[in-house]
Amino acid sequence: MCSSDLFPGGDIGCLSVHGTVNDVAMMGAAPLYLSASFILEEGFALADLQRIVESMAAAAREAGVPVVTGDTKVVEQGKGDGVFISTTGVGALPPGRRIGGAQARPGDAVLVSGGIGAHGVAILSLRESLAFETAIESDTAALHGLVAALLAAVPEGAVHTLRDPTRGGLATTLNEIARQSGVGMMLDEALLPIQPQVDAACELLGLDVLYLANEGKLIAIVAPEVADTADRKSTRLNSSHLVISYAVFCLK
Amino acid sequence: MCSSDLFPGGDIGCLSVHGTVNDVAMMGAAPLYLSASFILEEGFALADLQRIVESMAAAAREAGVPVVTGDTKVVEQGKGDGVFISTTGVGALPPGRRIGGAQARPGDAVLVSGGIGAHGVAILSLRESLAFETAIESDTAALHGLVAALLAAVPEGAVHTLRDPTRGGLATTLNEIARQSGVGMMLDEALLPIQPQVDAACELLGLDVLYLANEGKLIAIVAPEVADTADRKSTRLNSSHLVISYAVFCLK
Repeated sequence: MCSSDLFPGGDIGCLSVHGTVNDVAMMGAAPLYLSASFILEEGFALADLQRIVESMAAAAREAGVPVVTGDTKVVEQGKGDGVFISTTGVGALPPGRRIGGAQARPGDAVLVSGGIGAHGVAILSLRESLAFETAIESDTAALHGLVAALLAAVPEGAVHTLRDPTRGGLATTLNEIARQSGVGMMLDEALLPIQPQVDAACELLGLDVLYLANEGKLIAIVAPEVADTADRKSTRLNSSHLVISYAVFCLK
Repeated sequence: MCSSDLFPGGDIGCLSVHGTVNDVAMMGAAPLYLSASFILEEGFALADLQRIVESMAAAAREAGVPVVTGDTKVVEQGKGDGVFISTTGVGALPPGRRIGGAQARPGDAVLVSGGIGAHGVAILSLRESLAFETAIESDTAALHGLVAALLAAVPEGAVHTLRDPTRGGLATTLNEIARQSGVGMMLDEALLPIQPQVDAACELLGLDVLYLANEGKLIAIVAPEVADTADRKSTRLNSSHLVISYAVFCLK
C-alpha cells in the first residue's frame, strides 16, 4: 500500500508494482500476476489517477508481470487520503527452495546491489522542498530479473537470504536478518556503496545513510564460495555491482 | 474492500473473506488462498481490530481458504476511515471452463439461492436505528461450497453464469448479465424468494426488494435441461432452494 504523491524518479503507481514484484522475488519465487485495489477519496483528480494507472501499466509491462484483476472503491471526502493502492502478487516457488530471513549463516557474504539511500534522500528533498545541484532520483525498480540471474548463476541452496531494504534502510534490514538468523554482522564502511551526491546530502542534513529508505536495491546473503560468481553474473544485468560489503559472523 | 462497521449477522472481517471467496467462486474456480491488506486510521481501537481479525480467521477457517499473506499500514487521523481491508483471492480454474456474464443464452433458467434483500434491510435498519419485531439478519456466507456442488451435479458447460448479487441487488445484477449476454429476462414476481419479514420491511419503508443488497446469495444461469437437477442437488447444501424464478429470452 502506498499513499499519494509523486517523487523524483517514480510515483506510487510504479512503486506499488515494484514493491509487490520485489516482495515475491525476495522469497526466491518468480512473480507471475498482480492484483490492484484502489481506494479513492471523493474529489481525487481523474488526471492524477490516469497518470498513476498508466505508470502502473508501464511498470507491469516492463516487469513482465501483468495486473490481472482489481477493484475500485470511492470513499467520502475526508475519509481517505487521495488514493490508496493495495497490490497483491502471486509467484511460483520451486519445491524445496528455502530462502528467508532465518537462513543467514556465519561465514556468509552480504552483497548489496548499488548505491544506498537515494530513495530516502529523494523523498526527503521533495517533502522539505530542498533542491540539490545534482538531481538525486529515486531508484524504484523491479528486482525479479536480478534475483533470477543470481539464482541461475549459483548452485541451488547457495543463496540464503534476499531482501530489498526499503523503509528503515540497510541497517534495519540487516538487523532484522541478524536477529532472525541468530548471527551478527560486521560492516566495513569503506566498502559501502553510496553515490557521492547522496553522501553529500546526508552530510549536509545530518542523516545516517544506513537508515535511509531504498527502492530497487537488493541485499543477497550467500554462501561465501559463490560470492564472486554472484557478483560477476549479476553485474551484467544491473548498472551497479553486487558489492561484497559485509561479513556475517556467529553470535555465540 | 469494506469500510468499518458491524451489522446484524456479520462484520467487515467475515464480509471481506466471503466477498473475495465468492468473487473467485463466481468464475467457476475453486478458491485456494487469500491475502489481506489493512489500512488503519491512527486511533482505531485495537479491540475492534482484534474482533475483526478473529472474525476473518473464523470465516477463512470455515471456508477452508487460508489467509496466507498480508500487510498493515497505519495512516494519520483524518486520512482514513477506521479500517479499510483489501482482500485478494487465488483460485484454480479447470482448463476450458467458461462461466461468465456474457454466457447466458435464450431458454436458460435462472436459479436464486434463497430469500433476497435481507442484507440490504439489515444494513438499513442498523443505519437508521430501526428495530423490527423479527430480527432480520444479514446473510453473509461463502458460496464456493454451493458452487462446487452445483458444478459437480451437472455436465461441464451446463452452468453459464454465476453471480452473487451484492450491491445493486438482484435487478441490477440480472440487468448487467442481460446486457453482457445480449439477452432479455422475464421475472415472475410470484416465484421470487423473499422472507416475509423482509417483504414487510420493504413495504413499510417503500423499498424495492429487487434493488436491495444481498450477501451470501447465489444466482446461477443454467441450461434449461439441468435446472431441476441443479435445484435438487444444491438444496442439500443450502437451507434454501435454488428456486427457478426466471426465464431468459432472446432480445432480438
